[in-house]
Amino acid sequence: MLVELALNNWEQGVKRATAAFDHLSDGELFEEVAPGKNRVIYLLGHLAAVHDMMLPLLGLGERQYPFLDAAFITNADKAIPDLPKVEELRGYWKSVNEVLMEKFRALKPEEWLQKHTAVSDEDFVKEPRRNRFNVLLGRTGHLSYHLGQLVLLKK
Amino acid sequence: MLVELALNNWEQGVKRATAAFDHLSDGELFEEVAPGKNRVIYLLGHLAAVHDMMLPLLGLGERQYPFLDAAFITNADKAIPDLPKVEELRGYWKSVNEVLMEKFRALKPEEWLQKHTAVSDEDFVKEPRRNRFNVLLGRTGHLSYHLGQLVLLKK
Repeated sequence: MLVELALNNWEQGVKRATAAFDHLSDGELFEEVAPGKNRVIYLLGHLAAVHDMMLPLLGLGERQYPFLDAAFITNADKAIPDLPKVEELRGYWKSVNEVLMEKFRALKPEEWLQKHTAVSDEDFVKEPRRNRFNVLLGRTGHLSYHLGQLVLLKK
Repeated sequence: MLVELALNNWEQGVKRATAAFDHLSDGELFEEVAPGKNRVIYLLGHLAAVHDMMLPLLGLGERQYPFLDAAFITNADKAIPDLPKVEELRGYWKSVNEVLMEKFRALKPEEWLQKHTAVSDEDFVKEPRRNRFNVLLGRTGHLSYHLGQLVLLKK
């Protein structure tokens, strides 16, 4: 039940962010959420890349879009002039979330308590909190954090 | 373990928001997070009021600051000209979170699966997700959402 609630919470966050992105035109994605701050397109690419990273981090598969990192993880917004096309980014976002949700639903409750791949067996014995469930909670919070920024562009 | 992780996640969110508020001067609290959007002081009062409401919602006690609702819940920012003093608001925020954390830590894991007070016994049979744990996850997300807005004022 607790896992199910956390998964629903994640799914709600993804739906709300997707609705916020869909609500904005391609042109509006290039607006900053506040003066001098990240553009929405950066948040879109950033969230797609962070969610993509969850596949290997949770031991659920290979990354699908590692090429996003240069523009949306390693560097700040506007540092890299050449970005993927908006339509492609919108597609990556939807696809990665579909893949994740399918993998999430296939995990048994006890598998959420297993370690994630960024922690060694030895460290996990000492720090059992470094498990998949904790990653899920953390990334759900990360998504809400940026969602709060996205909605500032609502007219 | 799952409850413990969710509580840590909540606590981290409270700490980060508190640090963000503490980092801003009393004057800066009157700045908008983006042009035409909520001022930080509204978010401070809003979060304090929402957290205060969690006491009765989770069946953990009476509200301490119901008088915050007019300025920070029922009405939008700037609709009510007379706000509590900044110093008082900062105090309410810290106090309500201390009280909540103490009550949270005293709950047994299975008590998190019990219904919250806004759902009837009959409805809870049909919708067992409407429990304390779900409120905790939802409010943790609400906090992250506004934290993402607060940090936009960082210089």
